[in-house]
Amino acid sequence: MYYIGLDLGGTAVKGGIVDESGKIIYKDSIKTAVSDGATAVLEDMARFSLELIAKSGLNIGEIAGIGIGSPGLVDGETAKVIFAPNLNWHNVDVRTTMSAITGLPVYNSNDANCAALGEYLFGAAKGYKNSVFVTLGTGVGGGIIIDGKLFEGNCGAGAEIGHTVIVAGGEQCACGRKGCYEAYASATALIRQTKAAAKLNPESALSDISESEINGRTAFDLAKRGDKAALAVVEKYISLIGEGLVNLVNTFRPEIILIGGGISAEGEYLLAPLRAFVDKYSYAGSNAPSVKIDAASLKNDAGIVGAAALVAAKIKKQ
Amino acid sequence: MYYIGLDLGGTAVKGGIVDESGKIIYKDSIKTAVSDGATAVLEDMARFSLELIAKSGLNIGEIAGIGIGSPGLVDGETAKVIFAPNLNWHNVDVRTTMSAITGLPVYNSNDANCAALGEYLFGAAKGYKNSVFVTLGTGVGGGIIIDGKLFEGNCGAGAEIGHTVIVAGGEQCACGRKGCYEAYASATALIRQTKAAAKLNPESALSDISESEINGRTAFDLAKRGDKAALAVVEKYISLIGEGLVNLVNTFRPEIILIGGGISAEGEYLLAPLRAFVDKYSYAGSNAPSVKIDAASLKNDAGIVGAAALVAAKIKKQ
Repeated sequence: MYYIGLDLGGTAVKGGIVDESGKIIYKDSIKTAVSDGATAVLEDMARFSLELIAKSGLNIGEIAGIGIGSPGLVDGETAKVIFAPNLNWHNVDVRTTMSAITGLPVYNSNDANCAALGEYLFGAAKGYKNSVFVTLGTGVGGGIIIDGKLFEGNCGAGAEIGHTVIVAGGEQCACGRKGCYEAYASATALIRQTKAAAKLNPESALSDISESEINGRTAFDLAKRGDKAALAVVEKYISLIGEGLVNLVNTFRPEIILIGGGISAEGEYLLAPLRAFVDKYSYAGSNAPSVKIDAASLKNDAGIVGAAALVAAKIKKQ
Repeated sequence: MYYIGLDLGGTAVKGGIVDESGKIIYKDSIKTAVSDGATAVLEDMARFSLELIAKSGLNIGEIAGIGIGSPGLVDGETAKVIFAPNLNWHNVDVRTTMSAITGLPVYNSNDANCAALGEYLFGAAKGYKNSVFVTLGTGVGGGIIIDGKLFEGNCGAGAEIGHTVIVAGGEQCACGRKGCYEAYASATALIRQTKAAAKLNPESALSDISESEINGRTAFDLAKRGDKAALAVVEKYISLIGEGLVNLVNTFRPEIILIGGGISAEGEYLLAPLRAFVDKYSYAGSNAPSVKIDAASLKNDAGIVGAAALVAAKIKKQ
């Protein structure tokens, strides 16, 4: 059997046909016509799914279903998008519209949840029935696997680990709270921290870079070249990522935590100090089971493969 | 059938026989002979269990099993206490010793986990398959029910919600981290906050109370009488409790959160502002399912009834 995975974003829908080993055998993308409304987007996605099947040379009978990774809050049981501000969607019934057109079963979850499931079934968390995936990108997202099953929170409205406060009253977060993990550990937060350090440290190479050119790699690049101010930014940033990871350890005690998103490209330079931080501060120290920290493996394909994993997980259960 | 519930503490073991409705029909307690070592304590607990049965007039055939609520980290699968600093226990096999003496099945979990299960099966969380119990006492403990089952984290080493940081780098916590929820939301923390305010506000009635007499009720009592400094302490304290509750909502999105422990005696004076805080700051606001906040109902019996609930839950599963 094959699975269709659709990664629904605000500007494009990426889609692919994924085989039982998690390999994408065909992929393509379409624009997301957000301004045409939810029904139009869903109809586009349904037709796009049929196209993927046709172009890959498969028969519809070989497709087990369509999995969709959506932004925002998604109720996995009903496949409804409860709330997705990027798309301006409220309580959108994805399953009914798309099943009617394709005749296929349709599953839906939050994109970070899908990525966690993809890593568990097909990636670096394979074999770890208790795992957490954390993506450090524009925001901070996460997905949680408990006892081999995706944990989405009641009605799919949990697992929003980017919106747990680690500095009460701290930096403003887009969600309305102050001090969320996302406001300290995202690439966006790192860029803010880097710009602030550039202003405060005129002797640093950070201040030689124009503000508009500072990105999520700037501080890491200069830290590796020995710039003290950049190193201080990176060390502080990594400790803040670590605080959130230890919170996850003390809450879920997974066997493994995988780090994804743009920042994860730093590899061991990021992971080694994170491991030391988590080992040092996790509750009960060496008296409790240790937690592995590693990079996510699905990279750019995480969206499609993760969405396809929703279908794979459903079939496995039956 | 009846269940034995044992609440294992550092100074005493409280025990009782609990019926299928969660009512204690007989209870008693013994001293915890910590200095005699783990085996001696377990043998005492086994004999104590047999005594409870005899004194209650029941036959052993009417007892479904023994449930134990232990401090520290407990692996619910194996019933082993992994780590309990108060008792100086490391990897103590509770089940083998106690089953050998009593001939009864033995179950074990962390005391706060037991309380959560007790509230779900017999208390204020009855009917809510997704619930969280938070105890605000000397420390902050918690228990999590997901889909009608106790969630203890992998190997029982999770659900340590008192040890999730809400103020990174903040107040020192006994666990080794700085800024844990426990270091801000426990009664111990409130007392520290009250003492600090007493020193800073000589015009407040707080400063008329000798430092040694300040307890977890002082700030609440004076706030209710209109003392401004005391009110500021209480408002800040409640907002810090709220930060942790919103973190729990965004992580688990339970249907209900129950507040137990000494601080919960403040009732609506505490609960009403907590509800407002949680409604205001939870992710996606009114777009996501709302979460009830209420007082735990088992009060002083939580330890015994919660431990007995471990047995009840096990039977229900079979």
